Amino acid sequence: MDRHLPPAGRWQLAARAQRMQPSALRELLKVAERPDIISFAGGLPSPYALPVERLHAAMDRILRRDAVSALQYGPSEGYLPLREAIAARLTRQGAAVHPSQVLVTTGSQQALDLVARVLVDPGSRVLIETPTYLGAVQALAQYEPTFEEVPADAAGLAPERMSDASMRRARLLYTQPNFQNPTGRTLSIERRIALVSKAARNDLLLVEDDPYGELVYSGVTPPSLLSMAPDHVVHLGSFSKVIAPGLRVGYVVAPDELLAKLLQAKQASDLHTTGITQRLAHALLIDGEYDAHLEAIRLRYRAQCALMLGCLAEHMPEGVSWTRPSGGMFLWVTLPAGIDSASLFEDALARGVAFIPGASFHAVAPRSNTMRLTFTTATPSQIETGISRLAQAIKARLTKAEACAIVS
Amino acid sequence: MDRHLPPAGRWQLAARAQRMQPSALRELLKVAERPDIISFAGGLPSPYALPVERLHAAMDRILRRDAVSALQYGPSEGYLPLREAIAARLTRQGAAVHPSQVLVTTGSQQALDLVARVLVDPGSRVLIETPTYLGAVQALAQYEPTFEEVPADAAGLAPERMSDASMRRARLLYTQPNFQNPTGRTLSIERRIALVSKAARNDLLLVEDDPYGELVYSGVTPPSLLSMAPDHVVHLGSFSKVIAPGLRVGYVVAPDELLAKLLQAKQASDLHTTGITQRLAHALLIDGEYDAHLEAIRLRYRAQCALMLGCLAEHMPEGVSWTRPSGGMFLWVTLPAGIDSASLFEDALARGVAFIPGASFHAVAPRSNTMRLTFTTATPSQIETGISRLAQAIKARLTKAEACAIVS
Repeated sequence: MDRHLPPAGRWQLAARAQRMQPSALRELLKVAERPDIISFAGGLPSPYALPVERLHAAMDRILRRDAVSALQYGPSEGYLPLREAIAARLTRQGAAVHPSQVLVTTGSQQALDLVARVLVDPGSRVLIETPTYLGAVQALAQYEPTFEEVPADAAGLAPERMSDASMRRARLLYTQPNFQNPTGRTLSIERRIALVSKAARNDLLLVEDDPYGELVYSGVTPPSLLSMAPDHVVHLGSFSKVIAPGLRVGYVVAPDELLAKLLQAKQASDLHTTGITQRLAHALLIDGEYDAHLEAIRLRYRAQCALMLGCLAEHMPEGVSWTRPSGGMFLWVTLPAGIDSASLFEDALARGVAFIPGASFHAVAPRSNTMRLTFTTATPSQIETGISRLAQAIKARLTKAEACAIVS
Repeated sequence: MDRHLPPAGRWQLAARAQRMQPSALRELLKVAERPDIISFAGGLPSPYALPVERLHAAMDRILRRDAVSALQYGPSEGYLPLREAIAARLTRQGAAVHPSQVLVTTGSQQALDLVARVLVDPGSRVLIETPTYLGAVQALAQYEPTFEEVPADAAGLAPERMSDASMRRARLLYTQPNFQNPTGRTLSIERRIALVSKAARNDLLLVEDDPYGELVYSGVTPPSLLSMAPDHVVHLGSFSKVIAPGLRVGYVVAPDELLAKLLQAKQASDLHTTGITQRLAHALLIDGEYDAHLEAIRLRYRAQCALMLGCLAEHMPEGVSWTRPSGGMFLWVTLPAGIDSASLFEDALARGVAFIPGASFHAVAPRSNTMRLTFTTATPSQIETGISRLAQAIKARLTKAEACAIVS
């Protein structure tokens, strides 16, 4: 080899890339997906809840009738009939949305990336709930904001405790009002009203991420922030939870001026989302199959949620508490102070069960005695066995902690 | 309405978003796609060259045998069998590529975005050919580099005229060595050798974008820069031109250290590319259908390229010159100095024919007397009619220019 050649890997990375770190969570999820493990870790739909037959039939129709359009380059805004169907659905749900305000994205993860790219400069302040969705933190972190935690309590973010000054100086507030990932909690109507009014007064843009809103198991989903203040909200939706994550079809609804910028960023990002999976989402949406399927998975997930809550009540020792979600995919467990869920993860794995340690979901100030459990992915019998095993791991840890306390 | 509410659209955008401009080219392409226009504008495959039957059969197999995996969340790196097939194909073409070096992207446009995000800080110097692919300029421009034009002549970029100093201070050099968009020109083997050796000596990373390399109509495609200097090249490929743009499946091959960063950026961008279209690309690649289809479209495009060249020779007035590509989708026409192709566009449109004015393809110093013609999209009879009309528009413009010269 020519001795003048420099060693590989000498290139100067962008500052943002120097700060990127491999995701510990990804490594953990790989372990959790071993076939011998009952996993409450990943945020996956049940494999039994994927509408394979409906999608197969729709795909046949698409490739018989509309193959060339589906396979050619398409508009960056998205497939117009899909944008129309999304706008119509959101409008039926109470927000007046025009198709021109809908940008189809490659999953709602891309919508997060585009929103962050268009709004965040290095050092910009971003308000964020904690705990919150890790993927949002990752998307935002690429553009190097300063994260600021918003005041919250067990019922979610508390607008009455937010200062006008902090709202005025922030570029955006990111929130999941419905069945939040990771806690499963839902923001009350009263707090929604207080939040949008205070945000509007302070010119704060609310980024409302709503992948779970349609997965409601008791009561009704409260009105969206979008429906309350369309000029001050960017609303993100997804077909990943109700149809299938593998479609990679999501969307963002935004005021015109912002949508124009999001569209330019989308074009530079991947030109457009594949016409094939956009047409699949559209096919299910327009002929009632989406609603039929939604009803079926609501039944399944409602039962699994209730079962997991029952098993927790039956098996968990005193001092362990958890949320009682009325929708979504997750619940949030708080362990007695001093029990680190990251080290409990190893014990649980040895007993054949996995979860996600809560520290992963905090942009600021990790709290280590928490964990997220997914109730949608595992089967009912796995839920029974898994929660019992998890409780054993926690009990063993508590006994050990007590023993140590006596010794010391 | 509450009079305290501020007007919509007061949010502070990120600096990069403030600089984003609506693409004039997009508006132009919309006009060019009117059904009454013969379009040489868009860079689209022929609608007759899309492998609809092969894809339909592959999709049926996938949804019968592997639906749950295709529809669930998948790895950010991409579908492993596809990564293996890509690595094997590149290896057969002379570059030793391991599947772990392949990251599947949502079209190669996403690969450009990820490369730019990971390598470009505001003010970073980026070396670029001119004219060059507009989508690359857009992807890079988001991260606010300073573009620097590399010395070039009719045969493409000229490494012997590049200064070591400018190479050393640049973050990357972006190039399409094969059948370049928009000129159709191909970098000679001698220049490739000079380029990689000079780049290695100066620690310059070469971004080799190769969407057209397999569309070769005469001779053979020269060895890739990747095969010559794997430690100094990021190589981008795509299935958009040979299979279908609507799949949105591309890939990037990079040295390990860079690939790890690209993967983290990919994960934050859209989690992963849809498993459905990844499996379609894989299905065609592994069973010989890709090669059979490639042979068929090479025959079609070779004939269309030869036909367009023949029509140009027959109809164009003196003073007009053009490239003679040995592959790809485009050729590049240079008009007599003083004829602005952007204003010619209007005349041509009135005669029912469209192209892309050359100024669109310059990151620096637009040259207005040039245009790009696509020979793949139109049918042979449209090519004959369209080139004849375009020649009439140019002749009319030349006559007018002469008349003006006499008058003034």
